[in-house]
Amino acid sequence: MKILVNEKGKKFLIGTDDLHTDHGYIKKEEIGSSNPGDVLKTHLGREFRVLKANINDYIELMDRRCSIILPKDLGVMTAYTGLGYGQRVVEAGTGAGAATIFMANVVGETGHVYSYELREDFSQIAEKNVKGFGLENVTLKCQDVVEGIDEEDVDLVFLDLPKPWEVVEHARDALKSGGYLAAYTPYIDQVKLLNRILKKRSFSNLKSLECLVREIEVKDKGVRPKTRMTGHTGYLTFGRKI
Amino acid sequence: MKILVNEKGKKFLIGTDDLHTDHGYIKKEEIGSSNPGDVLKTHLGREFRVLKANINDYIELMDRRCSIILPKDLGVMTAYTGLGYGQRVVEAGTGAGAATIFMANVVGETGHVYSYELREDFSQIAEKNVKGFGLENVTLKCQDVVEGIDEEDVDLVFLDLPKPWEVVEHARDALKSGGYLAAYTPYIDQVKLLNRILKKRSFSNLKSLECLVREIEVKDKGVRPKTRMTGHTGYLTFGRKI
Amino acid sequence: MKILVNEKGKKFLIGTDDLHTDHGYIKKEEIGSSNPGDVLKTHLGREFRVLKANINDYIELMDRRCSIILPKDLGVMTAYTGLGYGQRVVEAGTGAGAATIFMANVVGETGHVYSYELREDFSQIAEKNVKGFGLENVTLKCQDVVEGIDEEDVDLVFLDLPKPWEVVEHARDALKSGGYLAAYTPYIDQVKLLNRILKKRSFSNLKSLECLVREIEVKDKGVRPKTRMTGHTGYLTFGRKI
Amino acid sequence: MKILVNEKGKKFLIGTDDLHTDHGYIKKEEIGSSNPGDVLKTHLGREFRVLKANINDYIELMDRRCSIILPKDLGVMTAYTGLGYGQRVVEAGTGAGAATIFMANVVGETGHVYSYELREDFSQIAEKNVKGFGLENVTLKCQDVVEGIDEEDVDLVFLDLPKPWEVVEHARDALKSGGYLAAYTPYIDQVKLLNRILKKRSFSNLKSLECLVREIEVKDKGVRPKTRMTGHTGYLTFGRKI
Ligand SMILES: C[S@@+](CC[C@H](N)C(=O)[O-])C[C@H]1O[C@@H](n2cnc3c(N)ncnc32)[C@H](O)[C@@H]1O
Ligand SMILES: C[S@@+](CC[C@H](N)C(=O)[O-])C[C@H]1O[C@@H](n2cnc3c(N)ncnc32)[C@H](O)[C@@H]1O
Ligand SMILES: C[S@@+](CC[C@H](N)C(=O)[O-])C[C@H]1O[C@@H](n2cnc3c(N)ncnc32)[C@H](O)[C@@H]1O
Ligand SMILES: C[S@@+](CC[C@H](N)C(=O)[O-])C[C@H]1O[C@@H](n2cnc3c(N)ncnc32)[C@H](O)[C@@H]1O
Repeated sequence: MKILVNEKGKKFLIGTDDLHTDHGYIKKEEIGSSNPGDVLKTHLGREFRVLKANINDYIELMDRRCSIILPKDLGVMTAYTGLGYGQRVVEAGTGAGAATIFMANVVGETGHVYSYELREDFSQIAEKNVKGFGLENVTLKCQDVVEGIDEEDVDLVFLDLPKPWEVVEHARDALKSGGYLAAYTPYIDQVKLLNRILKKRSFSNLKSLECLVREIEVKDKGVRPKTRMTGHTGYLTFGRKI
Repeated sequence: MKILVNEKGKKFLIGTDDLHTDHGYIKKEEIGSSNPGDVLKTHLGREFRVLKANINDYIELMDRRCSIILPKDLGVMTAYTGLGYGQRVVEAGTGAGAATIFMANVVGETGHVYSYELREDFSQIAEKNVKGFGLENVTLKCQDVVEGIDEEDVDLVFLDLPKPWEVVEHARDALKSGGYLAAYTPYIDQVKLLNRILKKRSFSNLKSLECLVREIEVKDKGVRPKTRMTGHTGYLTFGRKI
Repeated sequence: MKILVNEKGKKFLIGTDDLHTDHGYIKKEEIGSSNPGDVLKTHLGREFRVLKANINDYIELMDRRCSIILPKDLGVMTAYTGLGYGQRVVEAGTGAGAATIFMANVVGETGHVYSYELREDFSQIAEKNVKGFGLENVTLKCQDVVEGIDEEDVDLVFLDLPKPWEVVEHARDALKSGGYLAAYTPYIDQVKLLNRILKKRSFSNLKSLECLVREIEVKDKGVRPKTRMTGHTGYLTFGRKI
Repeated sequence: MKILVNEKGKKFLIGTDDLHTDHGYIKKEEIGSSNPGDVLKTHLGREFRVLKANINDYIELMDRRCSIILPKDLGVMTAYTGLGYGQRVVEAGTGAGAATIFMANVVGETGHVYSYELREDFSQIAEKNVKGFGLENVTLKCQDVVEGIDEEDVDLVFLDLPKPWEVVEHARDALKSGGYLAAYTPYIDQVKLLNRILKKRSFSNLKSLECLVREIEVKDKGVRPKTRMTGHTGYLTFGRKI
């Protein structure tokens, strides 16, 4: 999918209509026939560059009505679970679908993401978001994951919901031998309880961690970490079925 | 590929021969006919569980003769560049191939990783490592990347070598519009110089960061971060061709 | 010195006049005869508690026209240099005097702080601030420290100015055997250059570090680090004359 | 008090006897008549420099039989509570006396530290350590602090023991208006419980935090944080009596 970027770096999703901006409009026909790298002009002469949206552009622009998990945490989760092409993943809850889209983009056409969401409104937003990025390897399920996981032999169960411990037993049943459970939780109390249940349910290689990303400011007068940083998002907890 | 895990969690790669361990041997025929999840016994009665190796098991066990980049940094790099299935990636230098294998596992059969390495000995180790994991979407090139990048229209150029700034211009030529350059460097001085050159060569969205992973210890007597942590591995620097 | 704290925790410095607030006034006579712990009422009946100002209350309320160094960095500096009662300290630049007041409060009546400041306006603000807290062990000097340090046999030279390397030689002359130089600098480039000069001038036990303070949020629904934190203030560099 | 430093920077406490080292001995008379800055030679010709011990030298060399709190945490505690000369402090437990000595060195001759310790063996070690540094403003009490605090009107109650919440009420009684309670605890579970009790006992300005110190390596080939760092020591919790 294509997006347009103005001179200041602001990004615009392209729909099926003309693009109207503060600096003039661009006709849908012109947008339709453009290619990534092209520069289009509004009727007022302002330049917009055509870009093939990558997944981060898209997640930035899509409809997000609940708080989404940040790229840093998805990246570390991916690396620690060995997520890769062809894998089958179960997720709960879907929320706006940021993690869903990220994981679907990694497991690819030969893999699949099954995502459970309790609330119908979120499930619908996620549906729109997943479709909008053109992903066909996702099944969204408006179901309570605590009542059960339909899938079997999956590589990863990823949980971003308030009480992940309620899903541990279902996750164990759904996972293949060697598969991972990964959970994202903001509170340390959740980490504690989840670890207790994972242990009880014989998960191996338990690990809990937090990932801090610190940006570096490179200016002419010197290099230094940025003054402001995100001090906390959530903890990641991992267990493996062996 | 299969691996064996003993009662203490130690992992063993399986070759074409019998497995000999401190606690007895297991016949190759028995190993050959086993399935993930099975438990095999040595002639001394010790149990080994059969596991389908995932990428982290494999990288842990493979031949690594140079320092490899850690999962946390590969994960954050993946998330920030939107790496996904079907993408084409250029990498330099290959080293032992840890990043190569990680990225090949993400881009999948419809994607490809082209990896440049100056030293023939490393290139050969990497070849063995890549083949050993059964990846067919990798091309290893024993070439100096400073002399040029043969590929075009790639999604990502990933650099883990001492002077990434020498490759910026070639990277720009090789990248498609919207593609990313990502570099991993241990020293802040490298971050500074690389940013200068990326700016000069008109890369956009420049960002440099460090990723810190802190493990949490969950014990009966209480929860706390671990006493020891890795204080630094390297900085990640990103630029986008727009 | 006394301050008043309203019901919301807001603090007020007491001058020589009546205190006028949004919630009514309190007469100067009443303030004058009050003791720490007392509760005074405005003519509108709102309560203000009398508190003996500690150093942090005071620094919070005083006139600060330049950026001041944070308590965390002063605390770590104190601990790493073994600052204590009776010591003699040279400081540059004074700025608004936050570090001056902090150090004077530690070295006490038997110690002394000599503080150099280039700009007369800052020196005057600092004078007002130091006097206001009732400290008599401080000498403020409106002098360029690069032109020389008048004192000898001091325990600590503390530098918070852009080019601390210009002062290294003077600091060495001023320090007693076993004394410390400590410098606070925002940029890593400054750390690099300062270390080079400290080495050249035979300082021992060189150490550079950064101190990160992360607040923990303790709420009924759970415990977690705060979402926002200060990602960077400055680096501390230490050298010892041996 | 004097110490000797050999050519490699190793430090030696001086007793009342000759100093015997791997590189020869130095006579007690020679040591006795030396001054800080002097260089003494062993009978084998190796050089030892005389240094006036500062508090960190001393704590490094003294007898420490239990785990002591690190300078970074003492420094931040000092800064956040506004510890300074002339203040009166209650501490529990004493342990080997590292925090005791640090605080006594700050409050000075006009201040005082009263330190409670349950175990007689620790109390005796602490006694030796405190005396050894020549401090006369410390009272060590071999008493269970849970049974009560004898002092009144103190500026700070500092707690480094497993169940600080058992001391909150006594601390409140002992503190003057505006005074601080500060506690150091390794586990987050302790932070949680302590905050609950502090709230219940009407302490104000509750704050819990952790302090991370990260060393920077400045070498010719570049600048970078050190590979290894201390990931956790303990949390600091503060409350104020207002
Ligand atoms: C924080 S959001 C997930 C955000 C998502 N990871 C993202 O990045 O966009 C948590 C979601 O879990 C859903 N949820 C909570 N309990 C659930 C359950 N038992 N089964 C399915 N979904 C549930 C909530 O409705 C909410 O949408
Ligand atoms: C730190 S290692 C890479 C490790 C690798 N990322 C991994 O995780 O296994 C850096 C490698 O870059 C190679 N290298 C250095 N300069 C190069 C150049 N100009 N062209 C190709 N390879 C180069 C070195 O020989 C070395 O093997
Ligand atoms: C960042 S401020 C110091 C703030 C101070 N540490 C505090 O916490 O309030 C730096 C000060 O150094 C002063 N300064 C810069 N160069 C100086 C010099 N060569 N001699 C004396 N003061 C100098 C500046 O005028 C400025 O007021
Ligand atoms: C971790 S150590 C203190 C170390 C000390 N802060 C230092 O830096 O050297 C804790 C001490 O508290 C003492 N302690 C525990 N409970 C106590 C109590 N109720 N009253 C007095 N001391 C107690 C223990 O015996 C132990 O020596």
